[in-house]
Amino acid sequence: MAPPPSPLANGGGIATGNSITSRMASVYSEVQNSRLHHPLALPCVFRNPFKIVDGPPSSAAGNPDEIAKLFPSLFGQPSAMLVPGESNESGTALKIGVVLSGGQAPGGHNVISGIFDYLQERCKGSTVYGFRGGPAGIMKGKYVVLTPEYIYPYRNQGGFNMICSGRDKIETPEQFKQAEDVAMKLDLDGLVVIGGDDSNTNACLLAEYFRNKNLKTRVIGCPKTIDGDLKCKEVPTSFGFDTACKIYAEQIGNVMIDARSTGKYYHFVRLMGRAASHITLECALQTHPNITLIGEEVASKKLTLKNVTDHIADVICKRANLGYNYGVILIPEGLIDFIPEVQQLIAELNEILAHETVDDHGLWKQKLLPQSLQLFELLPHAIQDQLMLERDPHGNVQVAKIDTEKMLIQMVEGELEKRKQMGQYAYQFKGQSHFFGYEGRCGLPSNFDSSYCYALGYGAGALLESGKSGLISSVGNLAAPVEEWTVGGTALTSLMDVERRHGKFKPVIKKAMVELDGELLSYVFIVI
Amino acid sequence: MAPPPSPLANGGGIATGNSITSRMASVYSEVQNSRLHHPLALPCVFRNPFKIVDGPPSSAAGNPDEIAKLFPSLFGQPSAMLVPGESNESGTALKIGVVLSGGQAPGGHNVISGIFDYLQERCKGSTVYGFRGGPAGIMKGKYVVLTPEYIYPYRNQGGFNMICSGRDKIETPEQFKQAEDVAMKLDLDGLVVIGGDDSNTNACLLAEYFRNKNLKTRVIGCPKTIDGDLKCKEVPTSFGFDTACKIYAEQIGNVMIDARSTGKYYHFVRLMGRAASHITLECALQTHPNITLIGEEVASKKLTLKNVTDHIADVICKRANLGYNYGVILIPEGLIDFIPEVQQLIAELNEILAHETVDDHGLWKQKLLPQSLQLFELLPHAIQDQLMLERDPHGNVQVAKIDTEKMLIQMVEGELEKRKQMGQYAYQFKGQSHFFGYEGRCGLPSNFDSSYCYALGYGAGALLESGKSGLISSVGNLAAPVEEWTVGGTALTSLMDVERRHGKFKPVIKKAMVELDGELLSYVFIVI
Repeated sequence: MAPPPSPLANGGGIATGNSITSRMASVYSEVQNSRLHHPLALPCVFRNPFKIVDGPPSSAAGNPDEIAKLFPSLFGQPSAMLVPGESNESGTALKIGVVLSGGQAPGGHNVISGIFDYLQERCKGSTVYGFRGGPAGIMKGKYVVLTPEYIYPYRNQGGFNMICSGRDKIETPEQFKQAEDVAMKLDLDGLVVIGGDDSNTNACLLAEYFRNKNLKTRVIGCPKTIDGDLKCKEVPTSFGFDTACKIYAEQIGNVMIDARSTGKYYHFVRLMGRAASHITLECALQTHPNITLIGEEVASKKLTLKNVTDHIADVICKRANLGYNYGVILIPEGLIDFIPEVQQLIAELNEILAHETVDDHGLWKQKLLPQSLQLFELLPHAIQDQLMLERDPHGNVQVAKIDTEKMLIQMVEGELEKRKQMGQYAYQFKGQSHFFGYEGRCGLPSNFDSSYCYALGYGAGALLESGKSGLISSVGNLAAPVEEWTVGGTALTSLMDVERRHGKFKPVIKKAMVELDGELLSYVFIVI
Repeated sequence: MAPPPSPLANGGGIATGNSITSRMASVYSEVQNSRLHHPLALPCVFRNPFKIVDGPPSSAAGNPDEIAKLFPSLFGQPSAMLVPGESNESGTALKIGVVLSGGQAPGGHNVISGIFDYLQERCKGSTVYGFRGGPAGIMKGKYVVLTPEYIYPYRNQGGFNMICSGRDKIETPEQFKQAEDVAMKLDLDGLVVIGGDDSNTNACLLAEYFRNKNLKTRVIGCPKTIDGDLKCKEVPTSFGFDTACKIYAEQIGNVMIDARSTGKYYHFVRLMGRAASHITLECALQTHPNITLIGEEVASKKLTLKNVTDHIADVICKRANLGYNYGVILIPEGLIDFIPEVQQLIAELNEILAHETVDDHGLWKQKLLPQSLQLFELLPHAIQDQLMLERDPHGNVQVAKIDTEKMLIQMVEGELEKRKQMGQYAYQFKGQSHFFGYEGRCGLPSNFDSSYCYALGYGAGALLESGKSGLISSVGNLAAPVEEWTVGGTALTSLMDVERRHGKFKPVIKKAMVELDGELLSYVFIVI
């Protein structure tokens, strides 16, 4: 049978060039084409004339005095809110740059569409520059002038492939100067940085730098990360989280039904989210797996790896007694980072690997503290190897490369074997490992993310037009229909605290962690 | 923000019991509920009176004389075809058993619905027994009497969880006797075995056994496997293949867009399909990845692991010269089984592990042939470990547990490192590994699989009513609208050949391999 064109596949290669629109229809899958024409609603504030009103002065998330020193021009800025009323803006044409920074999140293209459409409608004659390949594109002046024909095919589509992304940071004085030169050369009125906590911190530093240099270029951030850890009162969620969780939840649901149908496997599913366990929690709430490990809970209870292993083994034994020898266990990518003893071990290993020769005879292990050595020896060989792997540029273990789910399977297997010998467990444990990651970062954005991103972009356009800088586009009241969403901007400095690095205070937007003070967790932690 | 109920998730735990229907609405996700009410069309032959006409006598796929000896009663049966006309059937109530055998494939529940609905409509007063947990359910007489209320919630839903599945086989004389006793006790007029090649072979043996014992119980098979390797002229595809490929293609499409957006990773994606590479080929046709490895091609060209590695490295170098340092590579699960030198190594290892003690000092390696030892030493440590792992019940390496994609990443990394030192490659290779497997076996069946399975079940009902046994339900003309599909049955013996095992001829349904005689493969093998 001839294979039919897939109505589901989020098709691969996307052509670029002049004839892009006409080539889309043949390259896109049915579902991509249908998403392309999905209409995007806007919050009703954009339907009529609106003005921007300021709230009270803001402070910082911590150490306001230090933040004030780091951002002398921007600190204390009020939040801005769009409300109906006669606008003071003249609708002058603007030159605006936009950049995608860091890992992909579904909806990024719609932020760009939102900015573009806002300017097309309100500031006719505007130009939008798409910086290519992330912040490096700003520094190198690598950009594309965005046109309706260029942008349209990416509407409601996944990925960041319209202008691509990158992880470079604008950090050194030379790099700030490069950005300044490009901003001046392009005569930029504004720049929108679509990124996570680091990128938004960077956006704020750039905003401060431009203001201090008396450049007209304003900088506005947009909250992007599938991890869901960039949020605050005014920014209820980061875009991409909704779509990614739905993709993972669908996969988890399938695996749960597989587990139940077969009746003999425990599926250990690792999910993205290194610093916080929001994805794991959200997927657990959507699918009700048998065990959900929340990193924040593991840390707050100061659990050891042995505790976690025992906990899983306990549930498996309880289920076995009820006749169920299968199940699904969700594990956040960053789990081992939340286990104090593992953190200690990794810190020691980082130190040793940075300064010592690792000999084949294992003499280097004598440098480990006794409890760290004991933990290291407890780990499966494959995990020991992974802990000794190449470091990231900061000399840290690349936690994403550690197969936590496989480690737990091996440790649980060992524990159940012991219990079997003690007559406490009489079944055969079979683990299956999964990592659901990259396939969730570039899926077709959900209706929510499509509309949310479009509104974030539209709002960013409004903030730039009104001359705001150093704010993050903030769309609220998200549980209501799109029409009732609120639109405004929040001072990036108000999300910041400082961290001490190399003897200096560095500003950081604090990652939002899973809150443990609800009744929620005891509910999701185990479903027998 | 409170997490909204997911409109996409294929929700997890499904309640069983009397109040199942009423509980579904609250347990099911929106999309599950919407699928539940998706109408199922039927081939038009079922709309009016029909009769069954026989074709010419059949033979076997190979060694017809041996097959004739193994199936003295059934060999040579003609194919059956449903055609419009006055039926000879009286519409008597029947007692029919149904069993799901082997790994899950989307649509299994609809086969059961089809059988049930056929009997409800045409043979009023019939009883359908669902044997629980696969063929073991037949042997142990573990079943549930299926009712409309029990079945309905599973309509168009993924998984085999309605009655669950299992991999046990009815093989020994005692086991055949157990099946006979249960068939007699339940007074079964027929049994439908929903399974892959092994299960359908088993179904035919059971049909032969029942006929020789003068039991009235007829046995009909249904073609199930996501691997797509159970097919022939009359059975154009096995159910589940369509859905699974669409699920994988969507994930691959997402990863391709991720690769393009980031511009720095090569994603190595392993896909299910141990014996044949149909899934990999179909996904390649749907998504156009950069490299597609087809096991059958690797085998026919007698490629070594080094050849495959070099081939991938060549493409990576070519793409690097064009400025592309990213891509996606599809790998069938069974790849290493197709590489002659690896097969040889595995055979030697199986032999050694069955009879020798594996010492820590590696003295056991001296038992390997020189070229096998060389290959073994070439392999990454993790793969060496996996090759030494526990065997399946037949003493074979569990190929599914070997991370072929990780092995290839390490080997390609090594090769590119060499080329770098020789000045032939100047970039940094970063591999990401994926295995898309279990999440595709229990997804919501596509419209095609939903209708196809319903028709397979309906057809199985018709074959049983007409007294047929030893046929596999065959629905054809699948490229046309459902109404125009043909319905009939094909002699299972006609799909069979024999294999010599333990000095005896065993019947086997030959797996359908990817055909290499088209122009297709040179097209999909590389997309620069």
